[in-house]
Amino acid sequence: MAVTPTAGSTARTAPASGSLIIALDAMGGDEAPAMVVDGAAMARTRLQGARFLLIGDEARIRPLLARHAGLAAVVETIHTADAVSGDTKPSVALRQGRNSSMRLAIDAVRDGRASAAVSAGNTGALMAMSKVVLRALPGVDRPAIASVLPSKRRPVVFLDLGANVDCDAEHLLQFAVMGEVYARAVLGIEKPRIGILNVGTEEMKGDSVVREAAALIRDSGLPIDYAGFVEGNDVTAGSVDVVVTDGFTGNVALKIAEGTASLFTDALKQVFSTGLSGKAAYLLARGGLQGLRHKFDPRRYNGAMFLGVAGVVVKSHGGTDALGFATAIEGAADLVRRGTNERIIAEMNGLAQNKRAPGVRDAAAR
Amino acid sequence: MAVTPTAGSTARTAPASGSLIIALDAMGGDEAPAMVVDGAAMARTRLQGARFLLIGDEARIRPLLARHAGLAAVVETIHTADAVSGDTKPSVALRQGRNSSMRLAIDAVRDGRASAAVSAGNTGALMAMSKVVLRALPGVDRPAIASVLPSKRRPVVFLDLGANVDCDAEHLLQFAVMGEVYARAVLGIEKPRIGILNVGTEEMKGDSVVREAAALIRDSGLPIDYAGFVEGNDVTAGSVDVVVTDGFTGNVALKIAEGTASLFTDALKQVFSTGLSGKAAYLLARGGLQGLRHKFDPRRYNGAMFLGVAGVVVKSHGGTDALGFATAIEGAADLVRRGTNERIIAEMNGLAQNKRAPGVRDAAAR
Repeated sequence: MAVTPTAGSTARTAPASGSLIIALDAMGGDEAPAMVVDGAAMARTRLQGARFLLIGDEARIRPLLARHAGLAAVVETIHTADAVSGDTKPSVALRQGRNSSMRLAIDAVRDGRASAAVSAGNTGALMAMSKVVLRALPGVDRPAIASVLPSKRRPVVFLDLGANVDCDAEHLLQFAVMGEVYARAVLGIEKPRIGILNVGTEEMKGDSVVREAAALIRDSGLPIDYAGFVEGNDVTAGSVDVVVTDGFTGNVALKIAEGTASLFTDALKQVFSTGLSGKAAYLLARGGLQGLRHKFDPRRYNGAMFLGVAGVVVKSHGGTDALGFATAIEGAADLVRRGTNERIIAEMNGLAQNKRAPGVRDAAAR
Repeated sequence: MAVTPTAGSTARTAPASGSLIIALDAMGGDEAPAMVVDGAAMARTRLQGARFLLIGDEARIRPLLARHAGLAAVVETIHTADAVSGDTKPSVALRQGRNSSMRLAIDAVRDGRASAAVSAGNTGALMAMSKVVLRALPGVDRPAIASVLPSKRRPVVFLDLGANVDCDAEHLLQFAVMGEVYARAVLGIEKPRIGILNVGTEEMKGDSVVREAAALIRDSGLPIDYAGFVEGNDVTAGSVDVVVTDGFTGNVALKIAEGTASLFTDALKQVFSTGLSGKAAYLLARGGLQGLRHKFDPRRYNGAMFLGVAGVVVKSHGGTDALGFATAIEGAADLVRRGTNERIIAEMNGLAQNKRAPGVRDAAAR
C-alpha cells in the first residue's frame, strides 16, 4: 500500500484521521540508513496503522527495506543524495541543506505530508531547520529540547537539554508550561509536580533568573503544581515530575549523568569479568543484572522532543541502534496522538490571558 | 603535650616549622562533635606531628577525646557554646556567629594559631566567614569551592562547586589558574590539562562567558596546558585534569553525579538482596564489589577546598563520618604542606604582569 502524499498542503495537522505518517531522516546517525530502516520495522509492529516517509539515498534504502516483510507496504521512499553531516554548523545546514534528508523530513511536516519528523542527525541543524521551517508555537519564544530520564520513582521530564544556552526567566516559565503539558499528555501524570533546578531549595538561592522564573510560575495563574527549587540529586530521586533549567546547565547535567552511569557500568563489568568467582557471580545474578540494564537502557529513553516547535520533531541519539530509533519514533507518535502541541497552545493562551488580566486566576484554563 | 597558641599574631603563615596545627569546628556536621573527634584521631595516625584545635562545647568534647589514647596530648580544646546551624543565612551567621565554633576556627587561621580550618557545617556561612575574616588571596576576585572527583583515568579537580552562581570570564580564568595549581601542588600532576565545561567542544559553542574565558586563558601568557572546551561526560571520562565551570553549573553537576551514583547503587543493592541466587552472587563477587565501593567511596573524596581564600579552609560534607572527616583534615594538611596558596599567589602575580605587558610570554613564571 503506497502512501499518498498531500503535497502542497499548508495545514500542519495530522494528514488524515487515523493514518499516522512519520517522516524519517534515513541518513542521520552513525549507523544510518540501516538503523533507521530497522527501527521503522520495529516501531511498525507497535504502532498500529503507522506509515513512514523514508527520506534519503534510495539505492541504499531499497535493499534494507527488503529485509523486513511487509515494511515496504507502509513506506514511501523519497530520494535525495544530500545529507547534513554531524559537524555542519546550523547556519550552513540552513543555507546549503535545502535538499538534505533532514530538511525534506521537516518540510514534509510543514506541508502536512507527515505528522512528525524523526532524525538521528546533527542536533543543532535539526533545531535550526525546525525553527525556521515550522516556526514556534503561538506564545512560545524559544522551543526547548526535552527528554525523559529514569529516576528512583517514576520517569522525569527534563528540559532544556541544550537548545538555549542563554535563558531568561520568561523562557524558563515557558519551559515549565511545556514540560508540564508533556508530562500530563504523554506520561499520563494527572498533576505533575514542577521544579526549577537550582543550587539549593531555599527561596533566596540561585541567580536572579531562577528566582524571577519561580515568581513568574507562581503568579502565572495557571493551575501548575509548582514544587519550588530542586537540586541536582532531586532529578534522579524523582522528587518532582518535571525539572526545568536553561540549556547550558541541562546539557551539562545530562552528560554528567551519562558519564557517571558509564563510570559505574565499566567498573561493574570489571568486577564480573575478573576471576572465576566474578564470572560465577555474574551467572548467578544475571537475571537481576539484566533487569537493571533494561531499566536504565538509554535506548528505552531515546528521543529528545523539540517542545514548542509548531510541528512534532524528535531527535534520536546519533549513536543509537534500531531499538533506540524505534523508541524515538514511538515518542514522536505519542506526541502527535496525545495532541501535545494543541495542549501547549491552549496553556500558552491561558498564560497570555492571565497576563492581560493579572489577579484573575483562570482555573478553567485546563 | 599542650599546644601553645600564638594568639595575637597576625601572620598567616604556618605557626612554626614542622608543627602543623589544624583548627577543627567540632560542632559542624550531622554527627558532630563525635565524628569530628573520631576523625581527628584517625587523621592523627596519618599526619606525623599534626596538632588540633578542637573548638566547641568542651563538656561534650572532653569525654569523646578520652576514647582515643594519646589524642588529648595533641589537642587543645577551645570552649564555646555557640554554633552555626545548618539553615542559618550566611549574612546572619556573619553578624551573630562571632563566637561560633566555625568562626573561632577561622579566626585561629587569621591569627596564625592554626594553619588551616576544617568544618562540616553550613557551607554558605563558612565561605562568607572565610572571605570576610581571611579575605581573598592577592589577585583573586572570587574564591571558589573545588573538589576532587573519581574518573575513569586519574582523579579530576572540579570547580566552582557553588561559591559563585554568577561568574564572568575573568572569574573562570582565575578558577582555571587555581585549579591548575591545586592539581600540580597536591595531586602531583606535572602538567595538568585544563578544560572549560561547555555544551560542546567546538570553539563557537556555548555562551559569551565561556568563549571569552577560553580566549583569556589562551592569551594569559601562563604556561597552562589548556585543552579547550569539555563536555559533561569528559569529567567522569577523565579527559582533562581540571574542569572549570561557574558555581551554578558546578553545583548542579556535582549533585547530578551523586544522584546518578545513588540511583545505580540502590538498584545494585536490590539485585544482590533478591532471592538466594542474588545473595549467593554477592558473596562470590564480594571482593570485587567491595573494591568498587572503595574506589567510589565519597568519604575518600571528602573535603571541598576553598581555593583563593588567604588561608586554608576545607569544607567537609555535613553527613560524613569519622573516615570522611579525616580525609578532609588530610586534604587541609596537603594544601598547607604543598604551599598551595603561595603558588596561587605566584601564578596570579604572573597573570597580572602578563596583562601589563601583553605579548611578553613569561615562561619563567613557574
